[in-house]
Amino acid sequence: MAKELKNFTKREENYSQWYNELVVKADLAEQSAVRGCMVIKPYGYAIWEKMQRQLDDMFKATGHQNAYFPLLIPKSFLSREADHVEGFAKECAVVTHYRLKNDPEGKGVVVDPDARLEEELIIRPTSETIIWNTYKNWIHSYRDLPVLVNQWANVFRWEMRTRMFLRTAEFLWQEGHTAHATKEEAEEEARRMLDVYAEFAQDYMAVPVVKGVKSANERFAGALDTFTIEAMMQDGKALQSGTSHFLGQNFAKAFDVTFMNKENKPEYVWATSWGVSTRLMGALIMTHSDDNGLVLPPRLAPLQVVIVPIYKTADDLARISARVEPLVASLRAKGISVKYDDADNKRPGFKFADYEVKGVPVRLALGMRDLENGTVELFRRDTLEKESVPFDGIEERITYLLDDIQNNLFRKALEHRERMTDTADTYEEFKEKIEKGGFILAHWDGTPETEEKIKEETKATIRCIPFDGDKTPGKCMVTGKPSAQRVVFARSY
Amino acid sequence: MAKELKNFTKREENYSQWYNELVVKADLAEQSAVRGCMVIKPYGYAIWEKMQRQLDDMFKATGHQNAYFPLLIPKSFLSREADHVEGFAKECAVVTHYRLKNDPEGKGVVVDPDARLEEELIIRPTSETIIWNTYKNWIHSYRDLPVLVNQWANVFRWEMRTRMFLRTAEFLWQEGHTAHATKEEAEEEARRMLDVYAEFAQDYMAVPVVKGVKSANERFAGALDTFTIEAMMQDGKALQSGTSHFLGQNFAKAFDVTFMNKENKPEYVWATSWGVSTRLMGALIMTHSDDNGLVLPPRLAPLQVVIVPIYKTADDLARISARVEPLVASLRAKGISVKYDDADNKRPGFKFADYEVKGVPVRLALGMRDLENGTVELFRRDTLEKESVPFDGIEERITYLLDDIQNNLFRKALEHRERMTDTADTYEEFKEKIEKGGFILAHWDGTPETEEKIKEETKATIRCIPFDGDKTPGKCMVTGKPSAQRVVFARSY
Repeated sequence: MAKELKNFTKREENYSQWYNELVVKADLAEQSAVRGCMVIKPYGYAIWEKMQRQLDDMFKATGHQNAYFPLLIPKSFLSREADHVEGFAKECAVVTHYRLKNDPEGKGVVVDPDARLEEELIIRPTSETIIWNTYKNWIHSYRDLPVLVNQWANVFRWEMRTRMFLRTAEFLWQEGHTAHATKEEAEEEARRMLDVYAEFAQDYMAVPVVKGVKSANERFAGALDTFTIEAMMQDGKALQSGTSHFLGQNFAKAFDVTFMNKENKPEYVWATSWGVSTRLMGALIMTHSDDNGLVLPPRLAPLQVVIVPIYKTADDLARISARVEPLVASLRAKGISVKYDDADNKRPGFKFADYEVKGVPVRLALGMRDLENGTVELFRRDTLEKESVPFDGIEERITYLLDDIQNNLFRKALEHRERMTDTADTYEEFKEKIEKGGFILAHWDGTPETEEKIKEETKATIRCIPFDGDKTPGKCMVTGKPSAQRVVFARSY
Repeated sequence: MAKELKNFTKREENYSQWYNELVVKADLAEQSAVRGCMVIKPYGYAIWEKMQRQLDDMFKATGHQNAYFPLLIPKSFLSREADHVEGFAKECAVVTHYRLKNDPEGKGVVVDPDARLEEELIIRPTSETIIWNTYKNWIHSYRDLPVLVNQWANVFRWEMRTRMFLRTAEFLWQEGHTAHATKEEAEEEARRMLDVYAEFAQDYMAVPVVKGVKSANERFAGALDTFTIEAMMQDGKALQSGTSHFLGQNFAKAFDVTFMNKENKPEYVWATSWGVSTRLMGALIMTHSDDNGLVLPPRLAPLQVVIVPIYKTADDLARISARVEPLVASLRAKGISVKYDDADNKRPGFKFADYEVKGVPVRLALGMRDLENGTVELFRRDTLEKESVPFDGIEERITYLLDDIQNNLFRKALEHRERMTDTADTYEEFKEKIEKGGFILAHWDGTPETEEKIKEETKATIRCIPFDGDKTPGKCMVTGKPSAQRVVFARSY
């Protein structure tokens, strides 16, 4: 590998530092001048755009439309829903003034004290309040329902400890906000969107997830139920990757949103909200990448194939290019993104290292010997395997390989999760096993108190009460009280 | 037309009120609870998404990549570039605190006085400062140049008088920020992006534009030159629709961004920035729409064709559907967006009116008589013409019609602009003609003082010094001093 890409911390040495370095070295993001806020660099943003495009298609295929609501929310809106304000008021960015003026002492600009807002405005930490205040005007009759709206937006939560993509003060996300005539329909919607998230995670990110419902402690502020997809990172920690909330009638009541039902009687509207964010970038990075850098599943790789010519003279290059260019054209015609990197200001070794760090799934290299022999060097990023193969048929081989890499990444991640999933029947066993990381399936008595005690003593939380798997009742590992089923415990990001 | 869509103010009665009503009745946007901020409703947002997708493709085709920079900017950054702070500090949203707390008097939440920021943060009114502060770390050598980056983002300027889409406190836009090794390359980039904007306006929005350079008075704060595309609305007022700025080395100097040139000597980097915003929605609406509602050019219409069945019985509907469904499928296969509206809770007349207000370019209606006769009723929104045509060959006719409507809208808008463009040789003539609206081509001595005087006395400003057209020198209509060429005056939005 090229010099500047060496001295990479290895995962085993320090997983957390490995992650931080990788984000920077793969050119995904960097810290900005504003505390807790990152700059998403072009390569990182290109991956996010691929995620966005795919998710957006899936939202539209399930009947949703996009819209846009204001960035700023009147302070008083937060207080309307009692749980919501508890959850979100504490970490807000507060706009108090609407003007700066020249510093009378001549030092740049200062806040103009005469430009104080009557009511402070909050940068949205999430948009339930402003949206339900809007829905009040949209919804009058059962004919106006359902409202199936999504928004792609930036949000802001003043986090004390931030990490790029995983937890930043400002982040990008989508938030779906739907309104329904019945409880059943809203619950169904919340479950449907969780399924969409799980499908996206598994089929596009190649990240296996456990679907389930959150315990009361971990529920979204203002929800009756929060559904979640939980992924496991290579260090055995859980990452909550997407959530979907059944909000009941809480926001309809807080903002007085009623509709006339078919019997012409007023009823409060039922609600859901659901979101995934740039945090998914963190899940993607941490699930697949290795000590050599980023590893990307082909379906989300901005660049799926790179071709590097190895030559000494301009004439050599011309001959290689003549061989490569028809291949590039026919791969592109198939919708495969490919780059022929014939830049002459970087050596092949540097290019190899750079594309390896950036996780390009397939790399071809062609030299004069290959031209003579009718071969090409083929490198796959997931296994780091390199082989010389016939140039004839390379197109089919690449198509196959992209699928194979996608599937292989998912399989590896799933095997890792299975290896790192265990059960515990006593609290002692649990305490011992949780030290090794991974998901621990254990019985719990269903009380917030027991969950809190476990969290304090072991730093593990209930990631979810899983929908699938063993539903056998048992006894709580801590209190011995009855437990309906095993739940998933883990330490988490 | 259906009842609720009547009582539309006509353009002749009150153009401004017609616009405001249209935005609401066509379901494009509405005022929010936050002063000066709008909610972009799903139908309006769908048009914006089509604009975004097309512009984004054009940016990428010209070598640009997307990235994302922080929403908040340290107050001190604004002061770094002297002109920039003058232009933008006055209308900022200022974040001063990072936390709310429960009101000790029990009334909701209040700003926590202990959570005051050391340095206030500004919601970006535009991102030159934070981006050039970032570029400092990206650019070291000529090999790092050019940097061709674009950002899709929300920005905030505390406007006192707002109008939906045309001027709102928060708006959505894209801002390109590029860095170059030479003055020539930066100027070329600024001109190239103006051409991209003009092509988009003319070929997609069907809005003819005049390209030119702004006078010093109207220049972007911090630019050496601002290039603009100016469109003319139906009331004869100008709408600045996109701008591209040659920033010279101003921001490189303010943020100390230098690069080592090929001779290994440090030089300041040359910059451009360029942007279009949701204001384009205003231009689109005001250029084409009529007293019946919105008129959309087919290339930006979320729904290009709607088909309404006219029936009495379920059996009638089944027979109509059998005829229509293969047509729907084959139109979709051609990439035409089509809706077959067989909803049974609205009458055909209501549907007709609704799609007319929403500007759907082509409407088909099919009844039992049509089935018997092998005909279909075809309505085109731009001319309001309705005719009965053979069902056979309808697909080709629709394809042709969508192109024809696109071209017709552009031609009509161009004719209107030409009709409303005039010259004035004396200030008296100018004052008289400007009252009738439109673009007035007149000579000007090139001084800010004369421009200011004209603005005060006539409310007209110099929209641009046009690139094309008559370049004959002359004498300023106000001062009689020499003028290099006629410039475009107009009253404007």
